[in-house]
Amino acid sequence: MNRFHVVLVAFGLSLIGLAAPAANAADPLPSWNDGAAKKAIVRFVTEVTKEDGPNFVPAPERIATFDNDGTLWVEQPLYTQLVFAMDRIKALAPAHPEWQTTQPFKAVLAGDVKTALASGEQGLIEMIMATHAGMTADEFSHTVTRWIESTEHPRFKKRYNECIYQPQLELLQYLRDSGFKTFIVSGGGIEFMRPWADEVYGIPPEQVVGSSVVTKFEMRDGRPVLIRQPKINFIDDKAGKPVGIYQHIGRRPILAFGNADADMQMIQYTKGGDGLRLGLFLHHTDAEREYAYDRKGHIGTLDQALDQAKSRDWIIVDMKRDWKVVFP
Amino acid sequence: MNRFHVVLVAFGLSLIGLAAPAANAADPLPSWNDGAAKKAIVRFVTEVTKEDGPNFVPAPERIATFDNDGTLWVEQPLYTQLVFAMDRIKALAPAHPEWQTTQPFKAVLAGDVKTALASGEQGLIEMIMATHAGMTADEFSHTVTRWIESTEHPRFKKRYNECIYQPQLELLQYLRDSGFKTFIVSGGGIEFMRPWADEVYGIPPEQVVGSSVVTKFEMRDGRPVLIRQPKINFIDDKAGKPVGIYQHIGRRPILAFGNADADMQMIQYTKGGDGLRLGLFLHHTDAEREYAYDRKGHIGTLDQALDQAKSRDWIIVDMKRDWKVVFP
Repeated sequence: MNRFHVVLVAFGLSLIGLAAPAANAADPLPSWNDGAAKKAIVRFVTEVTKEDGPNFVPAPERIATFDNDGTLWVEQPLYTQLVFAMDRIKALAPAHPEWQTTQPFKAVLAGDVKTALASGEQGLIEMIMATHAGMTADEFSHTVTRWIESTEHPRFKKRYNECIYQPQLELLQYLRDSGFKTFIVSGGGIEFMRPWADEVYGIPPEQVVGSSVVTKFEMRDGRPVLIRQPKINFIDDKAGKPVGIYQHIGRRPILAFGNADADMQMIQYTKGGDGLRLGLFLHHTDAEREYAYDRKGHIGTLDQALDQAKSRDWIIVDMKRDWKVVFP
Repeated sequence: MNRFHVVLVAFGLSLIGLAAPAANAADPLPSWNDGAAKKAIVRFVTEVTKEDGPNFVPAPERIATFDNDGTLWVEQPLYTQLVFAMDRIKALAPAHPEWQTTQPFKAVLAGDVKTALASGEQGLIEMIMATHAGMTADEFSHTVTRWIESTEHPRFKKRYNECIYQPQLELLQYLRDSGFKTFIVSGGGIEFMRPWADEVYGIPPEQVVGSSVVTKFEMRDGRPVLIRQPKINFIDDKAGKPVGIYQHIGRRPILAFGNADADMQMIQYTKGGDGLRLGLFLHHTDAEREYAYDRKGHIGTLDQALDQAKSRDWIIVDMKRDWKVVFP
C-alpha cells in the first residue's frame, strides 16, 4: 500500500467506526428511560468531553470502572462463579473420594446448596481452592470457557454470559465512543471473567480487575507454565476495590458503577478525586423481568449505600423504572 | 458537530495519525543499524501483521512487554530508584535521628554508597520501606515527579528519564503503529515508573507492571485515600515477571525485551506460547556511549542468557553494533 491507499483505507475505517455512534447520536442509550439516572449520565459524559468547558477531562484520564456481579450480569439466585465451583466439584469428585464425607463438598455432591453455603466463608474458600487451583493458567481458562459455553441459567434458560444487561452494554459503548477506557473491577475471580469479557462486554483481559489466587512460574515438561496455587493472592472486594484499581490501573476513575454496599469504597474513591465525578448503583427492583432485592439479600446487599446515596450525590439506577429492557 | 463534520474531523485525525508511520514507511527504526537484530524485528512484525499470512496474530493479541532498567533507560552506575531512595533518606533524615547510628541509613547519610549496598537485600528493603511507604498514593506520586524533574544523572548530566534509549523509543512506536499494545514489566517499583512513563515512553499507567508495596484504603480527614504500607506486596522480577504479566495483562506476550538474566523467565514464558514469538536481550557493549557490562556486573547481570541465546533463538541486541545512536 502506498501512502494514498493507507489514507483511503483509514478513511474507510473511520466511516465504519463512526457509523454506530453517529446512528446513536440522537440517543446513545436507547434502552434507558428518560429519567434522572440517564440524564445524569449524559450530562456527565457531555461535560467531561467538552473541550472548552470547565469540567473537561483529557481522554486518557477518562477511566470508568464497573462491578460485574449484579452490575453487568445477573448474580441471582447464586453468584455464577459459585455455580461453576459446585459444578466443578461434581466433575472432579471421582478423584476425591474424601469429599463424600467432608463438608462443604458432601453437601454440594448431594445437591444441597443450602448446607453447602452454611459452611460460610471458610467453606466457600475451600470450594474455590479445590476448583480454581492446581492446574495451569491455560487449563483453567479452557475449563471456564467450556463451562460457560455449555451451562444455562436456571431461570432464564440461556448461557450465564448472555444474562447480561443491555442498558449496560449501551453505556459501556457510549463511554468508549466518548474516549473512556472501560474496566471491570469485581470481587469475582479475575481469571473467571477474562476468557469471555472481551467478546461479551468489549473489555479485554488487561482491563479486568478481580480477586486472584497466587500463581507460580514453572518449567513443566520443558514448557514454561503458570501453576495456580491453592492460596488467595488478593480479594478485590469492598476496601480491596480501590486497592485493585491502584494496582492495575494506577489512576483514579472518574466514573464507577456498582450495585451493592461492597462497591461503596470504589465509589467513594472515585468521587473523592478532584473535578466532576459520577458514582452509580444499580438497584434491583424488578422481580418480574429480573430480581428484586436490596437490604436483606445474602447476595449483593444494598443497604448503607441506599441510605447514603442522597447526601453523597450517588445516582441510584432503578432497574424497573430506568431500564426499558433488561437483557439483549 | 453533525455527522459530516465528525467524518471530516476523523479524516483529519487519520491524516495526522498516519503522518508519522507513513514518513517512516521506508525505515521504521532509523536509529537501528541494518544488522541481524533489526532484520529479526522487522521480519517478525511484518509476519504477525500480514493478514493472509501463516503467522498472522490479531491486533488484540499483539502484546509486547519491555523491562525498564537497562532496557528502556540507563541502569548504571546505580538503579535510578535506588538513587531516589538514598536522596529521600537524606531529605527525611531530620525526622529520623535514629538513622544517624543505624545501617544502612548511616552510610547513606555519610554518602558511603558502597557500605550502604553491602547491607544486601535486607538493607535495600529497609531503604525502600523507609522511603516508599507511610504516605498516600498521591503524595508518593508527587514526590517521584518532583524528584525526577529536578535530578540529573551523574555522568550524562540530564534528567534520568532523559537517559532513555532512542532506538527503543522507535521500536515502541513501531510496535504501536503495527497494532501492538506496549507494556513495561519491570523489577522496579510500579509507582516509581507510572508518573512519567506515559510522557516519556507513551506507556500509560495501566500498562505498567512492576514491584509494589501493600496499600490500604482509608478515610483520612473525610477523604478516601490509599496509604502505602511498609510491606512488600509483589516482587516483579525473575520468575515474578510471568506472574506479573498474568496478573496485569492476562495474555501471554508475543514479544518481550529484556537485558538481564532476571528477564529470562519473562522471555521463556513469551516464547513458550504457540506461533511466532520474539525474545530479545539488550547487551550493553558500549562503554564509550553508555556502559559495557554483562556477566560479572552487580546490576543487570547478563550471563546465562548469553550462553543460552543461540540454542533458544533469543536475539541479542549489541548496543555498540546495532544502535546508531543511544540517546534521543
